[in-house]
This record gives sequence, C-alpha cells and structure tokens, in this order.
Amino acid sequence: MPAPLVKESAVDVLVIGAGPAGLMAANALGRAGVNVRIIDKRPKKVAAGQADGIQPRIVEVFHSYGLGERLLREGCRLHMAAFYNPGPDGGIELTSRTRNISAATARFPFAMTLNQGAIESIFLDSMQEMDIDVDRPIVPSYLEISSSEVELKNPQSHAVKVLVLQHLGSEQEVEETEIVKAKYVIGADGAHSWVRKQFAITMDGEHTDYVWGVVDIIPDTDFPDIRNRCAIHSNNGSCMIIPREGDLVRLYLQLTDENLKMVTNPVTGKPDISLCNTEQLMEVAKKTFYPYRIDADGEIGWWTLYIIGQRVASQFSVDERVFIAGDACHTHSPKAGQGMNASMNDTHNLAWKLSHVLRGWADPSLLKTYEYERRRYAQDLINFDKIFARLFSNKPKTKDNVNGVTHEEFVEAFSKAGGFTSGIGIHYNESVLVNPTYQSLATKLIVGERMPPQPIIRVADSWPFELQDLLPADTRFKVLFFTGDYLEPVQREKVLALAESMSQPESFLQKFTPKGARSSDVFDLITIAASRKEEITYNDFPKILRPHWSRIYTDDIDFSGKFGGKAYASFGIDPQGAIIVVRPDQYVGMISPLDKVSELDDYFSSFMTRSVNL
Amino acid sequence: MPAPLVKESAVDVLVIGAGPAGLMAANALGRAGVNVRIIDKRPKKVAAGQADGIQPRIVEVFHSYGLGERLLREGCRLHMAAFYNPGPDGGIELTSRTRNISAATARFPFAMTLNQGAIESIFLDSMQEMDIDVDRPIVPSYLEISSSEVELKNPQSHAVKVLVLQHLGSEQEVEETEIVKAKYVIGADGAHSWVRKQFAITMDGEHTDYVWGVVDIIPDTDFPDIRNRCAIHSNNGSCMIIPREGDLVRLYLQLTDENLKMVTNPVTGKPDISLCNTEQLMEVAKKTFYPYRIDADGEIGWWTLYIIGQRVASQFSVDERVFIAGDACHTHSPKAGQGMNASMNDTHNLAWKLSHVLRGWADPSLLKTYEYERRRYAQDLINFDKIFARLFSNKPKTKDNVNGVTHEEFVEAFSKAGGFTSGIGIHYNESVLVNPTYQSLATKLIVGERMPPQPIIRVADSWPFELQDLLPADTRFKVLFFTGDYLEPVQREKVLALAESMSQPESFLQKFTPKGARSSDVFDLITIAASRKEEITYNDFPKILRPHWSRIYTDDIDFSGKFGGKAYASFGIDPQGAIIVVRPDQYVGMISPLDKVSELDDYFSSFMTRSVNL
Repeated sequence: MPAPLVKESAVDVLVIGAGPAGLMAANALGRAGVNVRIIDKRPKKVAAGQADGIQPRIVEVFHSYGLGERLLREGCRLHMAAFYNPGPDGGIELTSRTRNISAATARFPFAMTLNQGAIESIFLDSMQEMDIDVDRPIVPSYLEISSSEVELKNPQSHAVKVLVLQHLGSEQEVEETEIVKAKYVIGADGAHSWVRKQFAITMDGEHTDYVWGVVDIIPDTDFPDIRNRCAIHSNNGSCMIIPREGDLVRLYLQLTDENLKMVTNPVTGKPDISLCNTEQLMEVAKKTFYPYRIDADGEIGWWTLYIIGQRVASQFSVDERVFIAGDACHTHSPKAGQGMNASMNDTHNLAWKLSHVLRGWADPSLLKTYEYERRRYAQDLINFDKIFARLFSNKPKTKDNVNGVTHEEFVEAFSKAGGFTSGIGIHYNESVLVNPTYQSLATKLIVGERMPPQPIIRVADSWPFELQDLLPADTRFKVLFFTGDYLEPVQREKVLALAESMSQPESFLQKFTPKGARSSDVFDLITIAASRKEEITYNDFPKILRPHWSRIYTDDIDFSGKFGGKAYASFGIDPQGAIIVVRPDQYVGMISPLDKVSELDDYFSSFMTRSVNL
Repeated sequence: MPAPLVKESAVDVLVIGAGPAGLMAANALGRAGVNVRIIDKRPKKVAAGQADGIQPRIVEVFHSYGLGERLLREGCRLHMAAFYNPGPDGGIELTSRTRNISAATARFPFAMTLNQGAIESIFLDSMQEMDIDVDRPIVPSYLEISSSEVELKNPQSHAVKVLVLQHLGSEQEVEETEIVKAKYVIGADGAHSWVRKQFAITMDGEHTDYVWGVVDIIPDTDFPDIRNRCAIHSNNGSCMIIPREGDLVRLYLQLTDENLKMVTNPVTGKPDISLCNTEQLMEVAKKTFYPYRIDADGEIGWWTLYIIGQRVASQFSVDERVFIAGDACHTHSPKAGQGMNASMNDTHNLAWKLSHVLRGWADPSLLKTYEYERRRYAQDLINFDKIFARLFSNKPKTKDNVNGVTHEEFVEAFSKAGGFTSGIGIHYNESVLVNPTYQSLATKLIVGERMPPQPIIRVADSWPFELQDLLPADTRFKVLFFTGDYLEPVQREKVLALAESMSQPESFLQKFTPKGARSSDVFDLITIAASRKEEITYNDFPKILRPHWSRIYTDDIDFSGKFGGKAYASFGIDPQGAIIVVRPDQYVGMISPLDKVSELDDYFSSFMTRSVNL
C-alpha cells in the first residue's frame, strides 16, 4: 500500500451523508450561496426501495425550493384510505373508505410516494445547476471541535476539523487522507451515524417486538383497493398497502406466529433477514389477503425485514458547531411514512439559520433553536408512532380476541393523527423566533406553525398567486402587511405612518440591512390589502412598500370566481389589519398590530445583529 | 465557385419553415413517430420581438403535447383589461376595468404573452429529445408534384420533389443542391410563402389604411394600468398596451396625422420604416398617455412599423400533397394576438391527420378536412379582425367627433369576441370528422368544438384528474363512455352489452385495430361513471373497458371538496349516459347513445381503413 497523502481544505459547512437529510441541507445551503461540501461513504447513490413516503407538508417545502413541480409529476398520489377487517367467514372484507389526508389546510391534500432514489435525484439535479456534487466515496475517520473559546465564539472560525479518507479511482487500496476544516458540520449519516458516535450521543427509547416484512411488487390481484392506501387487519396478521409509482405497490406485512418463528435466529433470538425470502413474504400476503387473490407479476425488485425501533437522540447539536439530523437523531416505524419527511424537515429548519449566522446577519445563539424545535418534534413523532404501531400491529378485536383493536379505535387514531402525519400541524414552541404575543390579531394563523396556503391577487395585473409561492426558501424573512381596505382613509393613514416609521434609521428595515445591501436582500415586504381589484392601484401605495410593482396584493376573488377573497377570513385577521412575520422556512414567527412597527424591531433585535458590511 | 453537388434523399413529410406553424408540425409529427424533416432558410432562429400573443386555447394545445407547464412558467399572464378614453380636459382617464378573457370554459382563463423565440425554443427542446433538428440555412428552389394518378393515390409514394440549396459552413459561396423526395410537404414559410407562390395561390383580401408602430420597452411611468392589457382611445391616436415577460411592455401605437405623414414615403405614398425611429414612437406614446408620464427605461430592444392587411389564401392544399399553413395562408392585425395561435392551430389540425394517413389507418381523403376546417376558421378570423381593427383604429366619439367609436361599442365588441379571440369557441363544421346527429345527448358539449376541461376522479385510487389531461395529442381517438351510475342495474346492463358488442369482429374496436397491434394503440377507451367514489370499484367494470386499472373514472367530488362532480351537468349528459368521441386534436367528433355502438362503427368507417398490418 502506498504511503497516504495528506491534504488540507477549508469549507464553511461540511455535510456528512448524502441521503435526503444531507441533500436537503446541501441544496438549501448552496441556494443560499453558502460554501458547502457534501460527502458520502457509499460509492453510488441508492437506486430503489427504502423510504418512499412523502407527506403534504414536504411537498410544500419542495415547492418553496422550486422543486415541487417535479416531485408532483414523478410521485404517486394517495387520496383514499381503505380499511379491511375480518368478515364473518374469517376472510377480510371492506369496512370503510375515507380520505387519506384530513389536514384541512394542506395545499396538496394527499400523501405521496416516490422512492428515495428519485427524491435524491431531484436534489442532485438542483445541486448540479449550482455545481455542487456529492464527493464519494469518502469516509470520515476523526472529528474534533476546537476548545478555544475565542474560536467558538467567532462563527467565521473553522472550529471543526474532520479527517476523511477518500478511496481513489477503482483501486480501492489507494487512499487519500484529507483534513477538512469546517465552520460547521452536519452529520446526516443515518441511523448508525458515525458523527453521533464521536460524541457518544445516546439514542433514548426502545425496540418493539413487532417484526415486519416489506416487499415491492407489481400485483396481479382481484383485490379492489390495491391502488388505495389500505390498512388490513386480518386474523393472519396486519398489512399496510402503499401504492407507488407506475403499477408498483409496497406491502408492509406483519410477521406473526410461525412466520415470526421462521425468521427468528434460534441462537440470538432476534429476527434474521437471511432466514427470510420473498416466497415466504408472498405466502404471508396470500393468507392476509384471503379471500382475495394476490401474486407478484414478474420478479420482485426489492424487499426487506425490520423491527420497529422508536428512539430519539439525547442531543441534536454539540456546541452549535456539529449538528446531527435525520435518521441520525430519530428512528421510528416506516409505515406512517414519516421518516424521510422528518429528516428533510430537520435540515430545512437548520439551513437558513446557518446561512444567517455565516453571513453575520444573526447571532450564533440562533442555532440553539434547531435542537429546541426539532428534538421536541422528534419526541412528538415517537410518541405518535408508539400509539400507531401498537394499534396497527395488534390483532383485530374478534369473538376470540376480545382485547384486540376495534376498527373504530383504529380509524379514530388514523384521523386524529392527520395533522401530525401530514406534517401540516407541526408546531414550534415559543422562542426568539416564535413570539405569540399578538396571536389574537390573526386568530386562525398559529404562531409557530407553517403559513397556510391562500390565493391572493396581485394588484398591478390582477394575476392570482398562491401566497405560499411568495414565501420561497430564499433565506429572507417575509413581512406581510395586511393593510385592510386601502381605500378606507383610516387604514391608509396607518399605512402611511407605517411607511414613515420603517424609513427611520432605528427601524428593523434599516438597522438590519447590511451596509451596501438593499433591504430587499434581507426582508421581503409583501402588502396584502382588502380592496376590490378593479378599484385599487398599485402605485398609490408608499414607495417603501413597493421596491417593485409586484409587491402589492389584495384579498379579492379572481376573474374565474374560483380563487381568492378569503385571506382575511381564513387567517382571522380583522379589517384593522395586522403584520405577519413569516420565517424563511415558512413558519409564522410573530404577529404585530399594523401601527406598531416597534414590535417588529424588537422581534428582529432578539436574534439579528446590527448591519455589518456585506 | 465549385461545381454544385447533387444528392438525393427521401422523407415522409418535409416541413418548409421553422416558425411556430412549422415547429408545431414537426414536433407533432415527430411525437407521432412520423419520419419528418424541417428546413428553414434563416441561418439562426429569431431572438425576440415579433409575435407574442398566446391565447387560452393554445395553452390547452401545448398541454396536450406535454409542453404547457413550461409555457405557463415562462409566459406573462394577462387577467385584467383596462379601457382609457379622453377625459373632460382632453387627457386620458380610466373608464373601466374588466376581465381580459370572457370565454367561460377556458381552462386557463387569461391571455398570455411570450416572445416567439421562447415559443420556438419550447418546440426545439421538445424536438431535440426526439433527435429532430431544424436543417438551416436551406433554401427551397423548385417543387413538383407527380402527375401520375397511381402515385397520387398511394399515400406511401414520394409524390413530391423539392430541390433545395444548402449553404455549407461559414463559406456562404459553397452550395449543395439536394433533391428531397417527400410523401407530403407543409409550407409554413411565412407571409411571403415560397411554397404558396409555386402554385400561384392568391391571397384574397386587402390592406387597410391603418398604420401602427410597435415598440417593446421597460416603462418608467406613473400610468396605473401599465401591467394590464389596456386599450387607450386618445385624441392623439389609439394605443394598445400588452404587458410581457419580466418588466417588459409592448405598446401598439397608432400613427395619425403628422406622425403618419412623417413615416410616409413621398414617392410611393406608402409607410416606410426607414422614416421612423424610436424617438418618434416614444413621442407618440407620450402624447397618447397624457396626462400620465411614460418613458423607456434603458435601451429599446425591438420596434417595428406595420400596416394592417387582412387576407386569406384561396386554397390551403394542392392535391392533398402540399399544404400551406400559418402566415402563408392568413395575415391580419397583430393586436388581437391571434397570429401565432392561428398558425400553430393550423398544423395542430393537420399533423394527426397526416399521421393517420401515413400509417394506413385513414383514407387520404381525410386530408381534405384540413382546408375545410382551417380555411373557414381563417375567414372568420379576418372578419372578426376587420371589425376589431376598425373599432380600435377609429377616433373616440367626442363632442368634436360625433361619428367616433363609443366606449360601450368598443367594450361590447371586445367582450363578444371573447370566445373567438380566446380560441375556445373555434367551431369546425359538419364533415366525416364532425357528426352532430346526436348533439341532443350532450347538450352543452358542442360537436365540432374542443372538449372543455372538467375534473373527474379515477376510481382505483380517487385521484382527481383534469379530463383534458386524459386527451393528449397522441394521435389516438379517445372514446369516452359516460355510463351513468354504474351501481344502477339498468346502466350496468347497458355497459355489459356495450362491452359485448365491442368485442365483435365488426366493431370499430376490432375492425380498425391493425393486425398485430393492441386496440389501445389506436383508441383510448375512457369510462366515466356517475357513482360515488367510496362505493364503486374499478374491477367491477368489463375487462374490455380497462386494459389498465387507470381507465375507469367517475364524476364525483374529490376529497378537497373543490374539484369534480360536475361532468354530467356541465356537458348536459343525462343519467342514461352517452358516448363521446374526441378527436386526437381534442375536438368533439361525435356523440352516440350508450347502447348504439353501431353509430361509432359508422363514424369511424367514414374515414378509417380496415385493419392493415402494422
């Protein structure tokens, strides 16, 4: 073996692991103009199988990065859920059908499936446009955070050193050693996270006794709900059907009794994938589906076996310099389709904060909110998962099994969980970023939750826009001025006064705009009036609110009569108006009265730093 | 000059001219798998300016080729129309604002603008995927149609010979002469069409006296409707404002009085572009906009001068072997934004017919319907244009000009023309392709007009689909079975009988499916029931109606409560059901009772040929 070469390099953010969490991070940071590098130990990206559940909120998030159209085009949509239970003769029968997603404000009111490889390709293609590739195969071997307080305090210092080994070319024996000096490191390196282990961060929680087989098939079947999301409780075990792209269907099959015995290693007492095969899984499927017929059409491309584990990392960050994200900090059952979503939402939450700190716009303490917000969410997720996994893995209630799960119990849990499983109801608690003081000014717009979709009309040209499309993940805070009816003199006066305050040097708009930059680089001001589109005129509004003609909107119905006119009502904002601050990740950060710009000054002062040179 | 080389080549369809009409033809034929070649005499494609109006129907057409998303993403949308007239002090003032597009069934209820170069790029990129490039610069120099009756009768004969000259490389002197033998030729070579001249086809109609300047600017203005489509009638001439991509705006400025004199060549008495410049046009704009201020921000990229001519070619085809399309067969004023749309719709109409004839599926006489349908439309367009151009070019009615055009007169014409200018109301008269016998079975679905949009629900997975998306431009006839409520025994019986008839050898489905092909290669059968989505099951339907699980739909409201449930009502189909045949270009071809498959047999027999080997 030749002597290893040692080289040194520096980067602002090093992302370890190119799964969905890592790629979301690298893409988001790249878009924000951050100097980012992403490495992965695998020589190639994953092809098929693995995670595939896409929840409504993550579709909104993809949209905010300009990646939603492709996701919608490529993915399979799950609108209907069907429930099967044992009939009088023991075989399964349809109990009921209902909508799959119950979250009322979901912009895309369906769940989706798309294999992890396709999701990763969406990010990889987006990153390609920014000339960011995944460096692979690169294996990290040593990591160290500086112990110098001076260094740790300065976000511009390369306070983390990571030693990595790169296998060169096809000759796996030739290794190159490199020291990567990074300002920040994100460990998105999966359930067996190497980064997590460097700091001996524990995973709190436990394994369950539930063992499941998963198999992707093109079904040959007379089962009528094979293209719906199905929960089958049979006397031979439970099954979840998840339709996928094209004609593909994923079956989650519970292994019980002799099937469970068959896959259990007699020495370890643990399930052993080498004792399982597709014939066995399809036998289980046939018994579960009886009296319906089910076979696999053609070869089975992907299958696996797993035990549900429900655990959360005890910390998500070390010194706010090294972060872990995705499977590295939470594992749970795959059947609720949460894993990939939770992982991508972790780094969606982290990326913009890192960008702000690295630009010197925000105080490094902002980074504490990552663990605060995402660990709490992960715990909620695990708690939900425990209930759901138990209900689903337990036998149905029958004459012979009076302690089993009733259909009503299951469907109620299924529906109640809608806000949660859809990702729509995710709530971040009060912090510097989440200030619910004036919650009452927008009663239906929950501070700490994501901004719901709502069509509004652009004043200059009456073009209806989806409000969420005006809130892209571009690292800017969006300040929405709900002015009320601008044709009312009282409201107009308020707006003029507001414009006057915002032009003062102590206003957030001036104070937190770096020298040499335009305020629109940091803050996107969006005005939403409540006047008839035929009557108001965009250039009647104060100049500070319209750096461009496109910034003035109104809450009115569009010409098709289908969209708009419900923003104030849906958000619970009364005619006196209000100001809504939306975070760069689309979460509502705070609400203020229309005539109290000082509230915005206070909010931004709590985490932003006074203007620095760009 | 070196001696010219002569080579020979053969192609099924030769398209001459790579503007919008030619590119639509080449792209559509390429998608249909036809051996097509497209040539253009210009060394490069047009960059900016020229045609840019995109009407609602053409957006639907682009969607049918899978190109609509990009068009919608890149184009500017015009929702609002504003009308200005002289106020009491002589300057213009806002008279009213109204919706720009009034066609009730438009799927995309707005006009659009996108420059011709961008439109062409959409086609070119689509063609690239099929390895079809525009051969350029290639100049046709001689064209001859065979005089052999035997050859002319056989659609597979290369009955047209075209001699073309290609300039090789950068050395313009080196020419290569080529004889292209084509089965069919499409002359999409513009207003001065060389192809048209080879057959001395006359253009019937006349020039008007109206002279207009056109200029693309980024405006610096206090005019409040600069981002709306505006019709300004001022005492200093009329102006049409057409907002465009980004901040660009196109102004159509009427030249009158001394401005008209200034651009008139004293010798010829005709307008002369060399006598005009941007300063003059901006002066006209300033007078027209008074009391509003208007200037161009930065340099003016494109401008021109034109006289309205309104003419239609006396024939659109020669021996159904050579066709002319687009500007080659109709010219009219650009302000109604019709030109590019009419041109693309010409070849959209022609391409599928050529595909069917070339495959041996249809009798060559089908090609007669191209001139029949499109020439009539062009005449209607010119008639409309005459009225619109007169109303718009004439002075407004004032105290001093009592014979002028009133605002009411203009707005009425504007609104009435909505169906026409949107492209939605285009109607093809009765022919082998348009059979209105059973019009009363679907009272609101006009035979000879395009199939309106309508959301329907896919039964297998409750996925809501836009019906138009199920009618792509894939050259197949779509047969829509509106079965009524399939849970009703009477309707179910009809459907079973229908399935039985269609399996008979004399049924259209068997008779016109070429040997060795599947019937779904020629006909796409789509079933649309009227049952609740929670209650019906896709695999209850006869197998012949579902070669794939995705072919069964129902008219029900989706889970969002926003889409669907109105198909039968909107189309005027009663619970007894009906069968609707939709042509490959999305026009309704015929309607039949649900229990009279023989009507379909007769319809298809009138132009299709009995199955041949593929």
